[in-house]
Amino acid sequence: MESYGADRREGEGEGEEEMVAPEGSEMRRRSAAAAAAKEVETREGNGEAAASTMMSMSVERVFEGKRVPGWREQLTLRAFVVSFVLAAMFSVIVMKLNLTTGIIPSLNVSAGLLGFFFVKTWTAALDRVGLLKKPFTRQENTVIQTCVVAAYDIAFSGGFGSYLLGMSERVANQTTEANDPQNVKDPQLGWMIGFLFVVSFLGLFALVPLRKIMIIDYKLIYPSGTATAHLINGFHTPQGAKLARKQVITLAKFFVISFAWGFFQWFYTATDSCGFQAFPTLGLKAYANNFYFDFSTIYIGVGMICPYIVNVSVLLGGIISWGIMWPLINNKKGEWFSADLPPTSLHGLQGYRVFISIALILGDGLYNFVKVLLHTVTSLVAAARKGRTSTLPVSDNGSPITTDNPVSFDDERRTELFLKDQIPQPVAYGGYVLVAVISIVTVPHIFPQLKWYYILVAYVFAPVLAFCNAYGCGLTDWSLASTYGKLAIFTIGAWAGASHGGVLAGLAACGVMMSIVSTAADLMQDFKTGYMTLASPRSMFVSQVIGTAMGCVIAPCVFWLFFKAFKDIGLSGSEYPAPYAIVYRNMAILGVDGFGSLPKHCLTLCFVFFAAAIVINLIRDLVPQKVARFIPLPMAMAIPFYIGSYFAIDMCVGSLILFVWEMVDKAKADAFGPAVASGLICGDGLWTLPQSVLSLAKVQPPICMKFLSRQINDKVDTYIATLS
Amino acid sequence: MESYGADRREGEGEGEEEMVAPEGSEMRRRSAAAAAAKEVETREGNGEAAASTMMSMSVERVFEGKRVPGWREQLTLRAFVVSFVLAAMFSVIVMKLNLTTGIIPSLNVSAGLLGFFFVKTWTAALDRVGLLKKPFTRQENTVIQTCVVAAYDIAFSGGFGSYLLGMSERVANQTTEANDPQNVKDPQLGWMIGFLFVVSFLGLFALVPLRKIMIIDYKLIYPSGTATAHLINGFHTPQGAKLARKQVITLAKFFVISFAWGFFQWFYTATDSCGFQAFPTLGLKAYANNFYFDFSTIYIGVGMICPYIVNVSVLLGGIISWGIMWPLINNKKGEWFSADLPPTSLHGLQGYRVFISIALILGDGLYNFVKVLLHTVTSLVAAARKGRTSTLPVSDNGSPITTDNPVSFDDERRTELFLKDQIPQPVAYGGYVLVAVISIVTVPHIFPQLKWYYILVAYVFAPVLAFCNAYGCGLTDWSLASTYGKLAIFTIGAWAGASHGGVLAGLAACGVMMSIVSTAADLMQDFKTGYMTLASPRSMFVSQVIGTAMGCVIAPCVFWLFFKAFKDIGLSGSEYPAPYAIVYRNMAILGVDGFGSLPKHCLTLCFVFFAAAIVINLIRDLVPQKVARFIPLPMAMAIPFYIGSYFAIDMCVGSLILFVWEMVDKAKADAFGPAVASGLICGDGLWTLPQSVLSLAKVQPPICMKFLSRQINDKVDTYIATLS
Repeated sequence: MESYGADRREGEGEGEEEMVAPEGSEMRRRSAAAAAAKEVETREGNGEAAASTMMSMSVERVFEGKRVPGWREQLTLRAFVVSFVLAAMFSVIVMKLNLTTGIIPSLNVSAGLLGFFFVKTWTAALDRVGLLKKPFTRQENTVIQTCVVAAYDIAFSGGFGSYLLGMSERVANQTTEANDPQNVKDPQLGWMIGFLFVVSFLGLFALVPLRKIMIIDYKLIYPSGTATAHLINGFHTPQGAKLARKQVITLAKFFVISFAWGFFQWFYTATDSCGFQAFPTLGLKAYANNFYFDFSTIYIGVGMICPYIVNVSVLLGGIISWGIMWPLINNKKGEWFSADLPPTSLHGLQGYRVFISIALILGDGLYNFVKVLLHTVTSLVAAARKGRTSTLPVSDNGSPITTDNPVSFDDERRTELFLKDQIPQPVAYGGYVLVAVISIVTVPHIFPQLKWYYILVAYVFAPVLAFCNAYGCGLTDWSLASTYGKLAIFTIGAWAGASHGGVLAGLAACGVMMSIVSTAADLMQDFKTGYMTLASPRSMFVSQVIGTAMGCVIAPCVFWLFFKAFKDIGLSGSEYPAPYAIVYRNMAILGVDGFGSLPKHCLTLCFVFFAAAIVINLIRDLVPQKVARFIPLPMAMAIPFYIGSYFAIDMCVGSLILFVWEMVDKAKADAFGPAVASGLICGDGLWTLPQSVLSLAKVQPPICMKFLSRQINDKVDTYIATLS
Repeated sequence: MESYGADRREGEGEGEEEMVAPEGSEMRRRSAAAAAAKEVETREGNGEAAASTMMSMSVERVFEGKRVPGWREQLTLRAFVVSFVLAAMFSVIVMKLNLTTGIIPSLNVSAGLLGFFFVKTWTAALDRVGLLKKPFTRQENTVIQTCVVAAYDIAFSGGFGSYLLGMSERVANQTTEANDPQNVKDPQLGWMIGFLFVVSFLGLFALVPLRKIMIIDYKLIYPSGTATAHLINGFHTPQGAKLARKQVITLAKFFVISFAWGFFQWFYTATDSCGFQAFPTLGLKAYANNFYFDFSTIYIGVGMICPYIVNVSVLLGGIISWGIMWPLINNKKGEWFSADLPPTSLHGLQGYRVFISIALILGDGLYNFVKVLLHTVTSLVAAARKGRTSTLPVSDNGSPITTDNPVSFDDERRTELFLKDQIPQPVAYGGYVLVAVISIVTVPHIFPQLKWYYILVAYVFAPVLAFCNAYGCGLTDWSLASTYGKLAIFTIGAWAGASHGGVLAGLAACGVMMSIVSTAADLMQDFKTGYMTLASPRSMFVSQVIGTAMGCVIAPCVFWLFFKAFKDIGLSGSEYPAPYAIVYRNMAILGVDGFGSLPKHCLTLCFVFFAAAIVINLIRDLVPQKVARFIPLPMAMAIPFYIGSYFAIDMCVGSLILFVWEMVDKAKADAFGPAVASGLICGDGLWTLPQSVLSLAKVQPPICMKFLSRQINDKVDTYIATLS
């Protein structure tokens, strides 16, 4: 079970190893809102002439007349009722996809939209009969959004189509190794709910201290979160705001275009190697190396929202990895690694991809983590000397991607509200320790193979990994949760060893790790949305807790229904093959052999890239700002190492569009760019809902748009002539 | 040998009869120019608010400061030197394409552009050294354009890849019938040049009286001619004209986009059933019936220039014919006509297509011809009574497509200049009679099978057919010259009979007819260009005469070179198969059987549609104007009957774009719509030059973008897996 994005191409056997994009990375997108936001202001620069434009472009000025409800008011009963209904609906969809194709599209935009329409219809009806007490606010909308995402994410990160099902006897019997009782655990409703409850909340507490660093200090973009916020703000824009209205119309226009384009593309996608997603835009040779423009409006939008340096870094990373390194390493097939491995094997080229990208990410993440830590400690010490506690210990720590701009009205107001309802630090840290302790005590009872000290070690490192994933996601919109899961399979599995149930230990550790890093990245997007819609962090936190609790019950129940109703779940070739269950189990089987089993030079390369990431960051911090902004970001470079370059090209196309637009008409590009980008992201995002429904209803696209070289085409034409 | 457009799909055996678009219709496009022209003003309406826009949008106001050179000054030696060089170059390209694929793209835009750059470079160089005597004017540019088109058109209408080569023994021996000496005539340089000289000039004289009716009275659009005029005007726009500059930039932008799009498409067109041109946009079922949007920027541009009623008529015609009639008639296969005929046979479905569309065209054409004739006679009589000759005998005869608008400054100035240098009527009529007599006397010496009275009859009807073709081309940009050629093959061939060399007589008559109707439509486009660039009709006429004379020498010589150098010309399977030569010969062989050999009910249907065309026109003329403008034009409806519906859909997309644009911002759409449309038409038009060169150099596109149904795709995937 993997989420949409790069994953949709894995496990479908394209025949060539180079064609197989790695599975297990997620990109999450959110729902709902318009108006010129933070990005506009940061891009606006300091020009005097632009001052009046900035005034009129301020979203919060438009909303100034509207009272921001207190955090308790934002948490309404109707919001949670709607959230529960949507969460159940989406969990069923996700679960069925988990167990059939393993490809999970992001349904977050649908969640936001449907939430809006449900509550809006309800409040409008009440309003008509004069019974409406509380108006529907954008903060309440964000709360619904957050709750639904938190709930149905469990259906993905719970691993019902991957690690959790991979533990079952049924899947184990499909492999020849490690199918002894020690390495097998069949699903049961009880332990699944228990397991999810003890591991899922940890991510929430790990988020709390990260929240301010990511959103306020580092000013990370979180493209989907930003787009969602634009959409939600757009829904709730008060009458009479002229520019804001125009922006909402622009957003709506591109929303419709993007949705229609997604629909149109669908018809030509009979199989996954068909359609615009497989368009060899730069030629067949480049396509084989994962370089192509895939006409995906989402990533064009993401590219328009992300700063140029992110897009350039991503492209550079793609060129270094898929353009140079992977082809070179592939030439060593048979020498550095065995030539007859399946394309998903971590012992082959896939191993380099996974571990080198993780090394790069960890290098960058660790550097930044330590930097933040040092800053925090020094400013705490300084504050302690002055006798007060700084509320903004790292505020002088400039974001790696934005230059220092004068703080705009929007930023000021948002920061103020974002910092108003703090979650008390003792609650956050105490909560983390408490949940960790409960988890360390409980989980070994569920999985005796997973010793308590494994979990302890995992929980010590988890915040760093959560930081890395949330940071990378903030830059590029990609969450690589399952990559971190693989790291856990590998390390914990090897530590336990095959003879001590290492396979099961690895799979369980994968679950523990994935749930933390996935939550960190996904819910950080929601915090970004909340930041831009003035939702209280406290109400967001409560909503996330409630949503997670919902998910921990809904997801296992839905899975249990499927598991009991269909006896062939997890059997390859059946109606519910759950293809990733066996993939994960195989990874765990390989993992128990430890790092020694990695392909040749892989570990050396990992160290090189780990060090390179730290060095690049050091250089960025030591050289003057005007030079530093041209140095690529290792974190952004690492994503395509694993995913492939195609989305980098999409993002650069988005960049290019914005660049040309700014050349032609800067004022207009600044005012409407974010609206266009949000429309593109959300429109395609919504299309995934009907697409999933079609897929579940077994309605298949009628046509394949195929790309063949002239030589093969000639043969195929001859063959087709023989058919009729 | 057929021209680009629908033709590119014929004769390549797509397997299904429905898929085969008919050959033999041309669409000619021209080169060069911007600014808001006539269309803008007619669309502008009478709004007071628009008055100032109209002023600033007048092209001729921009050019007001520039003196219009006298007609003799427009004819410069340098213009004809450049024309000769370009004519020779394009003749070689066209001839080689004639003899290889038989698919001829339109090179007119290239002619205009290259002409401009040649002369501009030359004059700029002279200007720098202070030797420039005469500046390069837009009128001179139009003269070059006209001359080159007139010259290289002969390489197409001379039938070197179709009827003329079809007479040869080599082609005759490839068929089993009618290969007796009486029906064979091998090419010789002498008679070919002679034949071309005596038939090619007739069209020119037939044009003269039509000219004013088409351009001034009927206000026909001639989309390519209009686009070319915009391009030429754009090249010569004086410095300082702000709006005009903007329009030129818009035109240039869309020119580049359209060119780049053509280039991009090329890569995916390994065979003719590949690429965007074969995109089943509306599904495979609709594609099989010729309903699809083929992403052709030319027709989108044409649709933007043509009035809505033309686009709607074309679409309606497509629906009636390809959507309803042809599928129904095809169901009668084996009953109404033999089931085992080749798709090009006029005895099968193709017969209905050709003759029903001709019937519809003739009905409409004849109605309008008679109407014009009556108007002319009555106003001549009225004028004679008043003692003076009206210069505008049919000016009260409203155009069938435009409503009466106040005459704009542009229209006024252009009409004034267009009518200034009249070609004296005695010259026109006398010339026609003289050339006809020479032709009637000479041609039977070349082809004894073609009796003098056949030619006489042909020349009596020729002006009507020329009128029909020029009228249809003015509405929709399609010239159906080879369709009229087929009519001649059929009628004259049958009249002569098989025993009297009817096959050769038919082919020769085809040549006579094609050269007239082709000239009429093609050069009328140039007159439209001349009208909009203030070129004198007299200089245009002279340029056309000189160009035609050049063509009559260049084309046969080039052909002769090929024919002597390559011994396998006309042999199927060889390097120079000239596929349409045998197609034309086969048509002639069938033609000698006369109308009785047409498929069942074909003649009845022809009469019905002929009558319907007249009735619809009568209704249009009798009902009030505001109702009449919603009644479709039979002429426009007839074109897709033969060509297929895909271009109708392109045109409607163009219409739709303009419609939405006008909804959003009428002033901007009016000012920039024609520039966008011209850019789209000319950009793709220029791309055909490198495309032809690539094709001649045997550089083939590397990729096939193929469209398969899911069922077939599954089989193909299995097959491809066996290849590797």
